[in-house]
Amino acid sequence: MKKIINDTENIVNEMIEGMIKAFSDKLERIENTDVIIRKDRKKDKVAIISGGGSGHEPAHAGYVGYGMLDCAVCGEVFTSPTPDQVYEAIKNADCGKGVFLIIKNYTGDVMNFDMAKEMAEAEGIKVDYIVVNDDVAVEDSTYTTGRRGICGTILFHKILGAMAEDSKSLEEIKECAENLVKNIKSMGMAIKPCTIASVGKENFHLEDDEMEIGIGIHGEPGIKREKIKTANEITKELTDKILSEFDDLSEVLVIVNGMGQTPEMELFIVNNFLHDYLTDKDIKIYKSMVGNYMTSLDMAGFSITILKLNEEFKKYLDYKADTICLKEL
Amino acid sequence: MKKIINDTENIVNEMIEGMIKAFSDKLERIENTDVIIRKDRKKDKVAIISGGGSGHEPAHAGYVGYGMLDCAVCGEVFTSPTPDQVYEAIKNADCGKGVFLIIKNYTGDVMNFDMAKEMAEAEGIKVDYIVVNDDVAVEDSTYTTGRRGICGTILFHKILGAMAEDSKSLEEIKECAENLVKNIKSMGMAIKPCTIASVGKENFHLEDDEMEIGIGIHGEPGIKREKIKTANEITKELTDKILSEFDDLSEVLVIVNGMGQTPEMELFIVNNFLHDYLTDKDIKIYKSMVGNYMTSLDMAGFSITILKLNEEFKKYLDYKADTICLKEL
Repeated sequence: MKKIINDTENIVNEMIEGMIKAFSDKLERIENTDVIIRKDRKKDKVAIISGGGSGHEPAHAGYVGYGMLDCAVCGEVFTSPTPDQVYEAIKNADCGKGVFLIIKNYTGDVMNFDMAKEMAEAEGIKVDYIVVNDDVAVEDSTYTTGRRGICGTILFHKILGAMAEDSKSLEEIKECAENLVKNIKSMGMAIKPCTIASVGKENFHLEDDEMEIGIGIHGEPGIKREKIKTANEITKELTDKILSEFDDLSEVLVIVNGMGQTPEMELFIVNNFLHDYLTDKDIKIYKSMVGNYMTSLDMAGFSITILKLNEEFKKYLDYKADTICLKEL
Repeated sequence: MKKIINDTENIVNEMIEGMIKAFSDKLERIENTDVIIRKDRKKDKVAIISGGGSGHEPAHAGYVGYGMLDCAVCGEVFTSPTPDQVYEAIKNADCGKGVFLIIKNYTGDVMNFDMAKEMAEAEGIKVDYIVVNDDVAVEDSTYTTGRRGICGTILFHKILGAMAEDSKSLEEIKECAENLVKNIKSMGMAIKPCTIASVGKENFHLEDDEMEIGIGIHGEPGIKREKIKTANEITKELTDKILSEFDDLSEVLVIVNGMGQTPEMELFIVNNFLHDYLTDKDIKIYKSMVGNYMTSLDMAGFSITILKLNEEFKKYLDYKADTICLKEL
């Protein structure tokens, strides 16, 4: 294993410190926690919180800021943050209008965020949440009952964060979140596994000519392992599976997301095919996002996310954001 | 070699198409060329052009847009664009106020951009240029006489692009560029080489426990190859070499740049040490940039860039930009 790190036990702490030092105008750390909170938070809005295991950078701390998240809770690498950390985030972010949690569907995350919700409710804080399960690859997985939450999660940050900034209520945000869940679908693939520093070896193995279709963002098994194909063939396969999950599609936002080690050049090659493939099916692409949004340490591969649009989603996708990773789209 | 590509001969073309399709509101391709030009260009300013071999994405097309570049000329992977391509960029971007070229110091780039300049001047277009040579690692290198141009180049895009937007003259831009050259220093390292698709194998070799200090962004040799050290030790070594090139430093901008395959987590760990190390030396950090700005295909490693600031640089660093990679800093 080769990594640019110091002590494997202190990776997340050093990462958080390095991030806060780089962006001290925008971000701060809640003392004695692994929670990153925005500096310029408004005092009269629903607070939006997300988080999960680290190793998916820029998710989630890269989306903390105006128009997106109020807090990101950073767990250890690929490990859910503990309930007390999530509780600290809720307590600090709440300003009386309630707190909305965006949770990726992993058993540990769902359990710990739910416990934090109960702790906060016991103190009179209104909390609601959504569980994101956009990954259409498999039904259950290593760390998950039901479908996994992957890159589509960042569109919850964008849209629900903008709604909160626009003074929408906790109930309105919840309603939109439930609608979003039905309209976001994603699927990924990998040509190279990732390595968790504290483990010290690849978390699965692929032969020199193999890829895995339907992989999760922690290296969970996909649908199949096979010989690597062309970018166009792979993109078609992922897109076909995603499209089969929608009844009809007229206008969409697409994300071509890198898993961490995929050169931007390759992501644009994927987008080249994806764009034409959807356009040929008379699906209008309202916006495209191409880059590293929800990574998996040093895994190489990509995922595609398609959001079926309506006027409300479009309004809030276009809303101003100011985070270290995303400004306006 | 595993890559997410189709035909190795068509990589740059598909990348450009994929980029234009993703950002057709901001970018267009000059017909029959590999030149990307911004859509909203003003008609009364100096045009700013950069480019070079592909494989360094988001450089340079990611910096085309308001407040930065007017055009990026995309060569084949790690290969200078031909003079006629650069000439097309100059001809299309010029609006009578002259054209300024930002060239990284590689023999092929310098020669081809210079020939394009002569072709344009023969048609009465005013052209001037700067050769960026921020890499302090070595004096001459595989493709270079003198010092190489690396990640510092993007600060030329930012500052000179902002000056052009602010209606500064070609002469004023040239003067600032010459001042920038003296005040930007960078140095990089790698723990893993990159692979050019058309070659099909790694462009140098490192053992499982080795790193190379002072590497170029095409895999050119550095100062030394040695056993990998901690992130802090490596960061200190690069920073010390960079600092030794400055007489005195009171206020700086720093970039921690990923080489393409380096997880963002590791870049923040580097920034954590870098920030403290400079602060302990009473060097004030005005801004920090942490991310993939000038990559080397699928190389893993990072570079550090330090810009010694003055009021003019700060003014234009703070100037609005709107490109697919950088908005305001």
